[in-house]
Amino acid sequence: MSRFSQVAIVGGTHGNEFSGIYALKQWQTNTSVTTRDSFSTEHVFANPSAYHANKRYLDCDLNRQFDPQGLADLTLTNYEQSRAKVLNQQLGPKGDPRVDFIIDLHNTTSNMGPTLILLALDTFNKQLAAYISERMPDAIILVEDHLEPLQHAFLCSVAKQGVIVEVGPQPQSVLRHDVMESMQEMTTHILDFVHLFNIDKVPELPAQVTAYRYKETLHLPQNAQGERIGMVHQNVQDKDFEPIVPGDPLFMCFDGREVAWEGKYTAYPHFINEAAYYDNNIAMSMAEMFSLTV
Amino acid sequence: MSRFSQVAIVGGTHGNEFSGIYALKQWQTNTSVTTRDSFSTEHVFANPSAYHANKRYLDCDLNRQFDPQGLADLTLTNYEQSRAKVLNQQLGPKGDPRVDFIIDLHNTTSNMGPTLILLALDTFNKQLAAYISERMPDAIILVEDHLEPLQHAFLCSVAKQGVIVEVGPQPQSVLRHDVMESMQEMTTHILDFVHLFNIDKVPELPAQVTAYRYKETLHLPQNAQGERIGMVHQNVQDKDFEPIVPGDPLFMCFDGREVAWEGKYTAYPHFINEAAYYDNNIAMSMAEMFSLTV
Repeated sequence: MSRFSQVAIVGGTHGNEFSGIYALKQWQTNTSVTTRDSFSTEHVFANPSAYHANKRYLDCDLNRQFDPQGLADLTLTNYEQSRAKVLNQQLGPKGDPRVDFIIDLHNTTSNMGPTLILLALDTFNKQLAAYISERMPDAIILVEDHLEPLQHAFLCSVAKQGVIVEVGPQPQSVLRHDVMESMQEMTTHILDFVHLFNIDKVPELPAQVTAYRYKETLHLPQNAQGERIGMVHQNVQDKDFEPIVPGDPLFMCFDGREVAWEGKYTAYPHFINEAAYYDNNIAMSMAEMFSLTV
Repeated sequence: MSRFSQVAIVGGTHGNEFSGIYALKQWQTNTSVTTRDSFSTEHVFANPSAYHANKRYLDCDLNRQFDPQGLADLTLTNYEQSRAKVLNQQLGPKGDPRVDFIIDLHNTTSNMGPTLILLALDTFNKQLAAYISERMPDAIILVEDHLEPLQHAFLCSVAKQGVIVEVGPQPQSVLRHDVMESMQEMTTHILDFVHLFNIDKVPELPAQVTAYRYKETLHLPQNAQGERIGMVHQNVQDKDFEPIVPGDPLFMCFDGREVAWEGKYTAYPHFINEAAYYDNNIAMSMAEMFSLTV
């Protein structure tokens, strides 16, 4: 695999996820933290208008606008659809990008701890997962390879390789010290790894790493009129990446009825009760645990 | 003291504090929960437009618009200033109100648990504090009597008596099962107490109750240009109502410098890192602990 010569660290893709925005500010005044000898680093503030409005986005979710069809569709003209085209021009273009590697910094209101989200399991990503797991024992490796990287609509899919650093729990529009430190720690480990990979000095790594693979998305209970009639059950709240077996309660309806997990597998819920997903009535994502062979 | 014959339970004074809004919905379809023999109960959704916009408010904080000067000033015409005048007409008018007692339901992103906020320490409120403390050992009694109730700008100050039920931690625009249960529990205890008070059957109560009195508000560190240069220290985060002594760290600046508590007293911080207070750069409130004699 070729070297990574151009790395972009992106913050503020969602305007009310403050850790990445404030981390960028610090790194821009103290560039040595994100600089390594074998590549150049640039810092990109993806959605400043949403930040100034103190919202996730103005018109639509910026981190769902980078699929090839959307980027090519000139009739999609709202603010985030326009920002996506500009960022694709600035960092990409997708498929033949100027930037080799993107680290996109995100927060969640869910109790996901420091999570590294990978879009594919190539050699680089598998070694990166092992490298991070070894250095941050509380880190979670989440694989979202249900789509080809090029078909993903995430901002980080614009570069040759891209990852999401997702850290929670942090309410929207809040800056937590612990979450900030965790995000900075994971990001600097990733930069270290890219450098070691570039100079062919990747250290010995564990042969197996525990990881989670996205399976499906669950919605909050609704009635026939589309009104929410229940909430995430307190047995599940804050228990991201803890196992749920068929029959375990997932939701508590306002009429006192419990709704159980009806899947056929042991699921590892995450993005549990994420504030930003209420607009689509999404309650949580489900993953399966697996052993990633490095 | 006279009986309370008309009680109003208010939710959605802030549009992104979901517990009260959803509690009202449930109580409106199951009115027996909030009905007692000695008074009538009405349910009021204070700021539906902010809820539909998924924001705390459209133009300004509704729960700061009920001071007598603002209510009388017809040049204050924005959405929340107008809603305040309508609610004052509907529930008040302040000073000579139709409604005897208001319970205003709020959430905070801070780790304040179930907190009962009182605006004065008259016999009714002191007995209420003792009644709630005895039934909910995790409940906090917070007294904000630095202003006369009539001078307060809170919605609940419109009635003859009013309290705020403030429950956290809950991110904005999220509904947590545990927080919902806690809010409903405190609210039904309050209704029970009002009924017992009305029929002269207040039970024997503890003679002393631990309580906290609001002292002052602290701001996040800023530079001369008014930019935030630090965040709430992780030693303080989530430790609402735990003691801070002079010299304890309060803030972590982005340049690595710590800022300590410089007050002359043991302070009990609360509303620590509340998301809604960032617009005014507020970091937390400070209280003193005291023993409330019932």
